[in-house]
Parts: sequence; C-alpha cells; structure tokens
Amino acid sequence: MLNLRSLDPLIELAFEEDIGIGDITTDATVPPTQKGIGTFLAKSEGTVAGLPVAERVFEKLDPTLTFRTLVNDGDAVVVGTPIAEVQGGAKSILIGERTGLNFLQRLSGIATLTAQFVEAVADYNTKIVDTRKTAAGWRAVQKYAVRVGGAQNHRFGLYDGVLIKDNHIVAAGGIINAVQRARQVVPHTAKIEVEVETVEQVDEALEAGADILLLDNMPPGIMQRIVQEVGDRAVTEASGGITLDKIKIVAATGVDLISVGALTHSAMPMDISLTLTLVAESGTR
Amino acid sequence: MLNLRSLDPLIELAFEEDIGIGDITTDATVPPTQKGIGTFLAKSEGTVAGLPVAERVFEKLDPTLTFRTLVNDGDAVVVGTPIAEVQGGAKSILIGERTGLNFLQRLSGIATLTAQFVEAVADYNTKIVDTRKTAAGWRAVQKYAVRVGGAQNHRFGLYDGVLIKDNHIVAAGGIINAVQRARQVVPHTAKIEVEVETVEQVDEALEAGADILLLDNMPPGIMQRIVQEVGDRAVTEASGGITLDKIKIVAATGVDLISVGALTHSAMPMDISLTLTLVAESGTR
Amino acid sequence: MLNLRSLDPLIELAFEEDIGIGDITTDATVPPTQKGIGTFLAKSEGTVAGLPVAERVFEKLDPTLTFRTLVNDGDAVVVGTPIAEVQGGAKSILIGERTGLNFLQRLSGIATLTAQFVEAVADYNTKIVDTRKTAAGWRAVQKYAVRVGGAQNHRFGLYDGVLIKDNHIVAAGGIINAVQRARQVVPHTAKIEVEVETVEQVDEALEAGADILLLDNMPPGIMQRIVQEVGDRAVTEASGGITLDKIKIVAATGVDLISVGALTHSAMPMDISLTLTLVAESGTR
Amino acid sequence: MLNLRSLDPLIELAFEEDIGIGDITTDATVPPTQKGIGTFLAKSEGTVAGLPVAERVFEKLDPTLTFRTLVNDGDAVVVGTPIAEVQGGAKSILIGERTGLNFLQRLSGIATLTAQFVEAVADYNTKIVDTRKTAAGWRAVQKYAVRVGGAQNHRFGLYDGVLIKDNHIVAAGGIINAVQRARQVVPHTAKIEVEVETVEQVDEALEAGADILLLDNMPPGIMQRIVQEVGDRAVTEASGGITLDKIKIVAATGVDLISVGALTHSAMPMDISLTLTLVAESGTR
Amino acid sequence: MLNLRSLDPLIELAFEEDIGIGDITTDATVPPTQKGIGTFLAKSEGTVAGLPVAERVFEKLDPTLTFRTLVNDGDAVVVGTPIAEVQGGAKSILIGERTGLNFLQRLSGIATLTAQFVEAVADYNTKIVDTRKTAAGWRAVQKYAVRVGGAQNHRFGLYDGVLIKDNHIVAAGGIINAVQRARQVVPHTAKIEVEVETVEQVDEALEAGADILLLDNMPPGIMQRIVQEVGDRAVTEASGGITLDKIKIVAATGVDLISVGALTHSAMPMDISLTLTLVAESGTR
Amino acid sequence: MLNLRSLDPLIELAFEEDIGIGDITTDATVPPTQKGIGTFLAKSEGTVAGLPVAERVFEKLDPTLTFRTLVNDGDAVVVGTPIAEVQGGAKSILIGERTGLNFLQRLSGIATLTAQFVEAVADYNTKIVDTRKTAAGWRAVQKYAVRVGGAQNHRFGLYDGVLIKDNHIVAAGGIINAVQRARQVVPHTAKIEVEVETVEQVDEALEAGADILLLDNMPPGIMQRIVQEVGDRAVTEASGGITLDKIKIVAATGVDLISVGALTHSAMPMDISLTLTLVAESGTR
Repeated sequence: MLNLRSLDPLIELAFEEDIGIGDITTDATVPPTQKGIGTFLAKSEGTVAGLPVAERVFEKLDPTLTFRTLVNDGDAVVVGTPIAEVQGGAKSILIGERTGLNFLQRLSGIATLTAQFVEAVADYNTKIVDTRKTAAGWRAVQKYAVRVGGAQNHRFGLYDGVLIKDNHIVAAGGIINAVQRARQVVPHTAKIEVEVETVEQVDEALEAGADILLLDNMPPGIMQRIVQEVGDRAVTEASGGITLDKIKIVAATGVDLISVGALTHSAMPMDISLTLTLVAESGTR
Repeated sequence: MLNLRSLDPLIELAFEEDIGIGDITTDATVPPTQKGIGTFLAKSEGTVAGLPVAERVFEKLDPTLTFRTLVNDGDAVVVGTPIAEVQGGAKSILIGERTGLNFLQRLSGIATLTAQFVEAVADYNTKIVDTRKTAAGWRAVQKYAVRVGGAQNHRFGLYDGVLIKDNHIVAAGGIINAVQRARQVVPHTAKIEVEVETVEQVDEALEAGADILLLDNMPPGIMQRIVQEVGDRAVTEASGGITLDKIKIVAATGVDLISVGALTHSAMPMDISLTLTLVAESGTR
Repeated sequence: MLNLRSLDPLIELAFEEDIGIGDITTDATVPPTQKGIGTFLAKSEGTVAGLPVAERVFEKLDPTLTFRTLVNDGDAVVVGTPIAEVQGGAKSILIGERTGLNFLQRLSGIATLTAQFVEAVADYNTKIVDTRKTAAGWRAVQKYAVRVGGAQNHRFGLYDGVLIKDNHIVAAGGIINAVQRARQVVPHTAKIEVEVETVEQVDEALEAGADILLLDNMPPGIMQRIVQEVGDRAVTEASGGITLDKIKIVAATGVDLISVGALTHSAMPMDISLTLTLVAESGTR
Repeated sequence: MLNLRSLDPLIELAFEEDIGIGDITTDATVPPTQKGIGTFLAKSEGTVAGLPVAERVFEKLDPTLTFRTLVNDGDAVVVGTPIAEVQGGAKSILIGERTGLNFLQRLSGIATLTAQFVEAVADYNTKIVDTRKTAAGWRAVQKYAVRVGGAQNHRFGLYDGVLIKDNHIVAAGGIINAVQRARQVVPHTAKIEVEVETVEQVDEALEAGADILLLDNMPPGIMQRIVQEVGDRAVTEASGGITLDKIKIVAATGVDLISVGALTHSAMPMDISLTLTLVAESGTR
Repeated sequence: MLNLRSLDPLIELAFEEDIGIGDITTDATVPPTQKGIGTFLAKSEGTVAGLPVAERVFEKLDPTLTFRTLVNDGDAVVVGTPIAEVQGGAKSILIGERTGLNFLQRLSGIATLTAQFVEAVADYNTKIVDTRKTAAGWRAVQKYAVRVGGAQNHRFGLYDGVLIKDNHIVAAGGIINAVQRARQVVPHTAKIEVEVETVEQVDEALEAGADILLLDNMPPGIMQRIVQEVGDRAVTEASGGITLDKIKIVAATGVDLISVGALTHSAMPMDISLTLTLVAESGTR
Repeated sequence: MLNLRSLDPLIELAFEEDIGIGDITTDATVPPTQKGIGTFLAKSEGTVAGLPVAERVFEKLDPTLTFRTLVNDGDAVVVGTPIAEVQGGAKSILIGERTGLNFLQRLSGIATLTAQFVEAVADYNTKIVDTRKTAAGWRAVQKYAVRVGGAQNHRFGLYDGVLIKDNHIVAAGGIINAVQRARQVVPHTAKIEVEVETVEQVDEALEAGADILLLDNMPPGIMQRIVQEVGDRAVTEASGGITLDKIKIVAATGVDLISVGALTHSAMPMDISLTLTLVAESGTR
C-alpha cells in the first residue's frame, strides 16, 4: 500500500540533516557493544500510521536492528499503548530515535485527524479525499496516512489526473475548449475534472463531457441544487476550507466527495515517545 | 541567513512528486506563449517566512521567470496583503504554484506561531529556542522560519551540539562519566548540555562541568529554585510541552531558555493564495 | 509538452558513459578556441522528434553553445533537410555530437513509425496509443515521440492508470472483485480498464463498471461483435502484436483505440548526421 | 563480464518512471501474502542476453524474491523455451514484470542480431565490433549484449580510445599533426585510430604512426587494395552502414574489423513473456 | 566513532573513477569462480587507521567477501605486520585492491603523523587539534584518522563552530560587534572563538565574552604572556605553520590547544600492500 | 584538458562537509551587501595547478562572483605572486575560501613535485607517468595536475587499459594465456601491458605479443639489459618507489617510461593564501 523504496531519498535527507558526521553525544557516552530495546509508546490517543516508515528508518540506519510492530497502521490506540519495539545496538536506537519519531508522530497525526473527518460523514454517502497540500518530499507518506485514516486519495500530482481550474479555463478560452483540448492529449485512462463556480458553468462542463465537477467554496444550498441537477452525469466534489464543524452540512448536500486540505496541512502530531531499556550483553542474541 | 543551495534536493523531491512527467492539465489548456503575473496574497494575518525559498522554487523550475518580493521575511502582514509576484510564462507559474505555496504557507505558519511565543515572553529575560522535532528534509527551512519569527535555534542536529539525556547518563554510568567522556572527544568549540531531573543531578552536572542544564518537565517551583542555585555557573533551559498558555509562568522562573517543539511540529499553515493574471504578449518584455 | 527538467538524470547518464573523464581525441586535436557550426542533416526521410532534447543536451554540456532549430518536432522532412544548427566551441560540439544524435535519431525513428500507423487508420474512427514497452530511462521521451508522431499515450506507468490483467483477475478472485477493490482505493480521477478474453468476461466487466475494455489478441470477427455489444457503455481497446499490415482490419472493427508496442520497441532510427564547419574566430559573436 | 553495480542508476530510473508512487492496480487486486512463480518464456527464437540484468531488477525491487536462470546468456533458444523463473510475492513479480522484460527483450534482440552478423563472417578472418550508437544510459548493457552475441566491443566512450575523425584532422591541420598531438597527451596504454578516406590519407596515417585505420564508407575494391598495402603496419576497420546482406563482401576484402552500428540501434526486441502461476501459501518456503 | 554510511558517496566516486565499466584486465584473466585471500601487509612502520573504511569498500563492492582485521585502528605496527585479510572471489579482491589501499595508506599516514605530534607534546598540558585543511570529500575520514592518532578535532566545518577571523572582525566593525552578533544568532550550544593578533585584541575579545582565543602566528614569548594574562577566562589555541621541530616551544607557552594543518595536508602515506593468495575452490565455503 | 562538469559531485561533497547548513560565523558577522575582492597569493614557490577548479568552486557556490586568473596553470611562480582574484559578495568569498584553497594548494603541490621529476629526467629519453595512487574522488583532478606539471598520465582506471600483474598471470595460468585472453575480449583500441620480474618473463611476454612491459622494482643493471634486448618490440616502463634521488639512474637505463606514485600520494601542498579586501558598495559594478 506504500512503495517504501521511493521513500529512501527522504529518509536519506533526514539522516543527513540530523546525523551528519555523527551523533557526538551518543558516540561519547554509549559503549559500542551496549544493547537495548526501544519501545514506542502512545502518549496521546489516536490512529497509528507510519510503522512501516519507522521500520524502514531503522533498517536503513542499521540493518542489524530488529523492528517489531505491536499494533498495525490504522489501529486506534489509547494513551500508554506500546506500538512498536526496536531491538539491538543501543547507539543505533538512540541515533535513529528522533528521525523515526518525526515520521511516526506526524503520520499518526494525519491518520487521526482523517479518521475524525471520516467518522463525521459516516452517515452520509460521501467520501473524504485529500489534496496536494502536503509537505515537500512527503507527498507519498502523507497520502498514505490519509488512506490509513480511512479516506481516499485525490490525484497524487499534476501528472496523474486532469483538474481544470479557473485559470486554465480563462487561458483556454472557456470550459468547452479546455475540456476538448484535455480530451485530445491526456491518456484515455484519466478522467477530467472541472472546477465550476456557477450553475452556468456546471451546464457548460456537463456539455463538454467533464467526468467530475469540483464545487469550490459554494454555499450548501447552491451545492445541493447542483448535485441534484447533475445526477449521474458526473461525480461531484466539494472543497474550500471545510472544517470538522461544517462537514456534516456539506455532506448533507449529497456531494460524492469532499476534499479537505487540512488532513495534511493542519494535523497536530500524535504524541509518541521512545523509551530505551538497556540490556546486558547476554540478554540479546 | 539560509543556505539556499542546500535546499535543492528537497525542492527536487517536491518537483518529482508533484510534477512528475508533467502537468497534464496545464499542458492541455494553456498555450506555451501565454504570459502572466502571479500574485501571492495573504488570506490570514501572520508573519511571512519563506520568500527566498519560494523564489528558489520558481527559479529552479523556470529560470526565465522573475520573482519580486513585496514584503520581507519577518514582516507581519494583514489579510489581503500582496506579499510577492512572479511574472513570466503562465504555464510555469501554474506548474510551480502548489510547490511554492506549500513552502510559503508552512514556513509562514511557523514564523507566525514563533512570533506569538516570543511576544509572550517579551517582558522576561528568557529566549525561545526550537527543537529537532522538524519534518524530514525540512530541518534547515523550519529552523530558518523559527529565526524569522524571532526565536533562536537550538543545535541543528546530533552532530553540532552535545546533549546528554537520561539514556546517555545510564549508559555511561552517571553524569560525571558522561560529561567527562564527552569533553574528551568533542571539538572544544562545542558546549556540553545535560538533561537533569532532580536537584541532586543538578549538583552532579555542575560538578562535572556541564555548560548548560536542560530542565525537562519540571514544576515551575522547583525550576525556579534550581535557576537560583545555578546562578552564573551554567545556562538553564526549560522544556517539555510548554504551551502559549503556560509559557509566562515558566519564563518567570528565570530560566535562560525555553525550548518549544510546537514551533515546528504544531504550527498551522498561514493561508496564502496565488492569483494569476493573464497578460497579452506585448505586456511583457 | 515535454518536461525537459525530468530528463536531466538520463542526459547525465549519457554524458557519464560517453564522455567520462573527457574526450581524449578532441582534447588532443582541437584547439580550445576553435569555433564551429554543427548542422544536423536528415539522411533518410521521416518525422523529426527530439529537437528540444538535443537542445537540452548541448545546453547542459556547454551553456555557451547556441542551438537553433530549422524545422519543428513533428515535421516530415526529406533526405538532405537541415533540421538544426548548434554553434560555438568546436570542441563542445564534437563532444556532444554522438549523445545528441543518439537521442534525435531514435526519437525521430519512433515519430516516423508512429506517423505511419496513424496514417494507416486515418479513415477510421480509431486512435493509436502506445504501451509501456519503452527503454529503461526513456519512458518520457519515447512517449513524447509517440505524441509527436500523432498518436496518443496510454498510461505512463503503473501509478497513473488502472489496468486489470488476467493475473490480477485470478488473484482477486474474479473481475467483479477486482474492479470493486480498485474502485475503492484508486483516486476517483482514474478510469478502470479491464483485460477481457471472452464474451462472458466482457459482460462481467461491464457489470462491474469497467470504464475501458482491453481486447487482447482477439480475432477481428469477435472483436467487432464485442464492440457492437459494448456500444457506449465502455471504451474499447485492441492490442496484441498488431502490425502495419494488419491494422486496417483491426480498425475496421470499430474499436476506439489500438495500442501498439512496436511504436517504442521496434522503430528503426532515422538516419541523421552532424556536419561540422569550422569558422575563424572573427566569424562568431 | 558486466559490472552490475554500475547499472543501478538506470534500474532506478526504470523503477521511477514505471512504478512511481506504486502499482495501483496490483495494490488494489493482489493480496500482499499471495505467492507466485513467474516464468520467462521465449516466444520467438534468438540468443538470450540480459539474465543478470533481469535478476538485478528483481533483486533490487524486492530482495525476498528468488531468481533462477534456466538457460545462460548466449544460449540460442527456440520458441517456447523457459529461460528463467522468479519466485516469491506475487505483487512484486507483477510490479517488476515490465521493467525486467524491457531489459531482457531488448538485450536479447541485440545478441540475436549480433549472432547473425558474427555467423555471416564466420568463414572470414574478420571480427565484428560495435559502435557508440547506443541508447542513453544503456551503453554498458548494450555493449555487453554485443559480447554475448559473439562480437567484440569498440571503445566504450570518448575517454578510452583515440579515434581521429575528419573534423579532428581539419582542426589539427592534418593527420600528422593530429596523431602527434594525440601521442603526446593520451596514456601510452591507448592505441590511436585514424579515419581515412583516400589512399593518400592512408599513407599519411601510416607515416604518422597510427595504430588502426578506420575505412569509412569505402567501395570494397578500394578497401581491399588498402588492406593489402597496409599489411601488418596497422589494424584495419571498415564501417558505414554495412548490412547483413553486404557484410560478406566487406569481410572478403580482408579488413581486420567491421563495425556495425545496427547491432545496438536497429535490433528488434526478442519476444519474451512472463507467465505468473499463483501458488498457495503452503507451496512456498 | 565514524559514521560509515556518510562515506558511501565518496566510496561510490572512487568506484566510478577506478572501475568505471569494469576491470578489463581482471575480467579477461581471472576465472569468475576463482577464490582467494588478500592480506594487507605493513611495509613501513606507523599507526594504522582506516580499517573500517577498507572494510566498507569491500563490503560495498561485493557483499559476499569477508573482511577480517588483524590489528585495530590506532595500533602502532612494525614493517611486515599483517593488518587485515579479505577473503572470497579473487576478481572482487583484485578490483577493490587499489581503492581499499588508497584509503588505508592515506589514513594511516595521517594517524602516524598525528601520533608523532601528540607524542611530542606528551609532557605538556596541551592538546593537538586539526584544521579544515582536508581533501575535498575526505573531511570525515581524515578527521577520524586524526582522532585515531590521538589528537582531537577542531570544528568539522563552517556550520558547527564559530571562529571569528580578521576578515569577520573588519566586516563587523570590531571584535565587540562581531562577538555580540554571533552570540545573538548561533545556537547556545556553540562556543565562540576569536582570532587575535595583539594584546589589545585579547583584551577586547575577553571583554566581548569570547570563549576561545586563537593566537595565530605569534612569537612564543608573546603567546606565553597572553596565556598567563588570560588565565581561566578563555581557552587558548595556537596556530600557524607549527612543525614537529617547533612544537615543544609552543607547547611550553602553556596554550591549551595547538592546531596543526599538516596533520591532514602533509602526511606521507603509510606503505601498505595487498598480497593475494589464490585458493582452490574446496578451500573456501 | 579537464572535464570540469565531472568534478561537480566532488565539489558538492566539499560544500556539504564544509558548509553544511551554513557558515554561522560569516552569517553573523558579515553584512549581506558587503562586497570584496579576494586575492590568492603564492606563499611558497611552485607550479600552479587547479585554477579552473577553484573557478568552478566559486561559480557553483555563487554565480554572481567573478573569478579572474592572473597566471595560468603550469606557470612557475615565486613567493608573493598573486595568482587569481575573486570579486563580489564578501560572504560568498569567505564561505568558499577554504574549499577553493584546499583544491588549489593540493593540485599545485602535485604539479610542483611533478615538474621536479620531469626536470630531473630532462636529459634522458624517458617520460614520467603517474599511477592510480590517487585520493578517492580526486582521480581526474590529480591526473590533471600531473599533466600540468609536465608528465603524462598512465591509464585512468581499471577500465581503460590492460595491465596484467603477477596475480593475473597466476590466475590465468601463465603470461601467454593471460595476454591471449585479454586480446580476445578487450577493445582493439587498448594496448596490453604485462608486469615482468625476470628475463624469462620478458621473453614470454614478447612472444605473447605484449605491447608494453612493466619492469617493477628491478635493479638498474637488469633493467638496462632488458631494455636493450626488447628494443622496438615493446614499450618499457619502470616502476617501484623511484624517488627524485634515484630517478636519473633509472632513466639512464633507457626505459621509455617511469611511473611514480609519489606524484599523487606524497606531494606537499603549495602554500597559498587568500587575502580579502573589503570594498565600499560603490566600488563594485
């Protein structure tokens, strides 16, 4: 569900910026032969995400470490739940601690917030999707955390889905032109989505053969009217600063999808700590 | 103040994940010769940070674009303030829009939150510093945004400062041992910081010659007593989930520094948009 | 239409493997100050593709060179047509010659073959599309050359389109299951294509809601029957070793698309040469 | 015989362009625990080349897969011959299938064509060599496939052999000058080859001490005369669009070497497929 | 004590420049199945350094090789001492030989020279430290060799220590300004060092709160007076072309540290050879 | 004469290790608008080499700097000679100073030592060549400095020349076998060199058709006899710890080449400094 290999450059960046020439404190104070067990503990409740990423971090840092998950990505945990263990050289565990936590806390934070949004619309026939408002380098993992939280992904980037916005419409000389040009050049495997702001644009987009309509920043009343009018002719997606407070009202309009930028740009990190237990040499393999 | 060259790998990752083989929507709908001006507008109030990063994004994407700042990093702006302009090929502006905004919004969010913390302790003789709780790949820019917001940086990574925590103390067999070993091997240009949890540890650390004491998760009362006892013998730093609500109480203890992980891990993005104005061919150079 | 930046790693590989530590022949024999003009000449007829790639090669090799196109990508040229000029240091022109030609000849070969396929079905309502049978590292440029030749691209990779083949169907336990699972997890911007081998599978795929049917290695008679039966309910695509000889028969079945692996894996290179004219120092800028 | 490590950047490019963020079809339809055996089958006859490359592809993609060759590189196979097996996670096999095949088919195509050229001159005292007309990034593997097909390699790049062509001669002011300058600066381990077009140039090159003469696009009659005149004083190499039809006539002139660009730029891929057999969990290690 | 992972890019560069497309001699002459044992022998006396680097070289080149150290980094050895063994495929041993030796000889040379300097000041209360005069790409390993030789490292780069030199003082408008500005912006974990040339500057630096004084190119007499005057108020460091001949005189002044550029820029390599013993197939695993 | 592009990865490593997140001293003390002129001064006499490398360093660091050479690579200079100037932002000059000097000093050191060796054999018909005993990552620049010093390069790596040593001979089962196998597989553009230790091996190597004989660690008397016996049948090369003291004796034997590892592994750096002159804003462009 997550192409871990593609994360390696990001993990490398993390190592470079955090470890650089080495952890001078650990080098000075921890004997190279010291073994230990590091336990990741939830210190706030939430939905865990990113365990395979944390595992990859320690595996890349030191292949002799062993990483064992105690819960799965997507599990909701309470305060105090041990979520994973990493065992082996104490130096390596300490050196990788912060890098591992930085992934685990942020990704779990996204899954936790996503799960709240998904829960909020559980009674409606509406799906939550994410946006491209992700941190540079984190697109793949943040979108993964969204899936872990129970929502779906919108397109991954500019390359794998057509989304014709107002600027594209103006530049192309109207919705009809824009959709036609897109239809001519994009792979037939891609659907065409058009951002619409008025009822007239909805008609124009449907006539042009748009597959999906993006209803951006519309009052719920108008949105509902449009959804009914569109019927089966296109998929409808609502967007525009939709918060947990307001999402039920939007879902009630009948839109097929609600895209929420906050999932990836405004999630608080989940509080997770790593506790190290030193073990005597004989205590390990 | 920011080594922009070192950001290139992160910006490359951002381009790879967002642009990939190309922006199929813009390719289909915007003529290659179309020119435009994109204006970055503040849609929430806050402290701007990241303009040089946004400039680097557009410069790397298309060197023929011109980027002009209308405010400076560190300026507090109100809603509606235009903060920068990028001019040139409309296609390039649209392709770089999201990548530029993702940096600008997140970094301005950090500067804005940092400025609130700095403001909160303005009446005290205490400085705010950050932590290593940054997003992978973003260490340099997030710490830059902290400086823009008026706070100071703690060490950048494991390589440029000694911070002896509880695990190191246990592994080394006590504070005295730990500090001595560190003194022997780290460059003489580095100070040695020790995390202390009790008054006894404070005494031990001072005796060992620690330069800085990290007072983690201590009640303000105890912290104040320690600060007074330490006097000029070491720098004191408080840490541990210190929020805006509680920070004045901590500052009142007299600690020299308060480190705040929230600056980089819990800042909401500032709301900034890019508005594109198409210009006729003759309207540009 | 082609994201040139994304080609840089491939061009770097080409430089590394061809130039390495330097062109020892040119270093020994050509004075550093010698200027020249290199003219690319068509030595066989065909459709030119890859001029922006060749330009990028010389630009990266030596930014002081100037590259001027004399025809455009997509132009059909006859033997003897000058297609581009590169002017500047003679050493740089000679060093980049083979790398530039290797791109230009192969890409023009693809465009030329593609144009023949497109021409062959000009009287039918059928489009030619390519496949993923490209040379490692060349996906983007080879698919670009296909577009230059007048055909359309199929999905770019495994990431931007769903194509459920026989193995996926078996693993998922049937077409219905496979399509449903795909619908649940892929972005709503992607269409779902299913490979079908029998009329029963066609019915099953339509029932499952497949957007596109891939008719692989089917006799034209059966294909025609299926196309008629499917009608507007799905897009139809024929594939399977369809050569120039046989393509009219396949197009006559009424399929919407014919995918042709040969476009990228079996195109002969177009014959193009570079002729260098040395110019006296005063003869240049 | 092939430095596999040096191929990693090319294989990485192939993964990036084909897999990107992941195989969305396989992710959706194939259970992560499903095991399978993929069998590579020859669907056209030819000389196999590239098995170690295909093995490296799967090894890098998923180190838990096991790859087993059933024939060796250089073996001539008939239609239907199983040439290799890859066993392990079905998802990984499907994800790597196209990348593996793209290498195996193209390299086997080169070996097959090369073997035909080598066979054609078997009765002559002439060796077939390749050129630098290779696909960017593929130099090492394509030259390897040429060796597998039974021919020898010409120089690998501009850095490991001196080949003075007409442009170098003009720029240096004659053959004598060109050879002398080269002799002065290139390592004494390198031979010096000179392209000659006339009998006078042959004399001049021999006088200058050229080790090898490149006879480009010469009529066989003149070539034969030159070969006899040169005798043991230099190695002779013929080149210039020499096809399978014409090669015996060229070989009969007595030239030591014939270089053939078509080996790497015009070989048709060998038709090879991968058939996946799903195996029950208990059926694997 | 040495972050081996961070060396990989340098080792890759070494492989690229030495091995390139492959070792054509070894490929031609050594059977792929031939096993062997390579023994590293000291051919001059000295202090060994770099064994983990050599091990990493062979491990990266061919993970099936086994590398066994016979002495430890830091051991002083006499002529003829075997220092390590590498066992496995003879081809791999021969291909990696020069790369491994180039690291081992140069790093042991640095450790050997460093040990001589450390020995020279053994009777004084002065420590030897290195400088940034290292070979590009070799900073981490050369500084490691210095530690192995018994000296301490100065700052690693421009990023992890403040060293205010004459140019900085002039640009900042005096020592006071320079130190104050540095204090404001650098992490509190870094000490501030100031280069001083006169007694007045010493006073000014102390007043500004400098932690360390760099006494560059000073006559021993003046240096001694300054050291006495400074007392405990700052650490003192002498520098400036201090050779083995002169170092006792400098140490006798009482300075805390002497930095010596020669450790990394003028050490002669230690003479080490690799002797290969071929072993019959049955002689190895 | 030097492929500067290929140096970029090494220069990048240098920047990473020296600059990292930034020059904290210069950032704190030098105003961003401050301009300056940095002058490189020879502080010891010698032969300058590496000016284009230093230029590349500053160009990559900050393209707005201008670099001007005052002497040329290969010029012998006396103490006090200004050899180059770099002008522009004072911050950039200071940040790049050490990286530039580290290249310039080491490469000039190699050229200086090389010139001494070349001078020593000026009266003999013998050429000095280098070896592969270079610092990892520095192969291309160190061999360039050797050429600047007036000597010639031996092969660049294992890939561009055949050198059959004792281990290869043993593994291949004798000189005849080894040479024949090499002849079969290496490009015809490469000469074959064989290391010989006895007169019998010389005969065997000549019979096998070796192009070059490497006479390793031989007494001058035997060497002379072999040289005379070999005559024109092969090129002869002496090697083995040949110092400036002993080189005339070796040259007098009549060998064609003497390879000297010391050129690259034991050259002392030339002493060069950079002096910065601050200039008022109006003093620059």
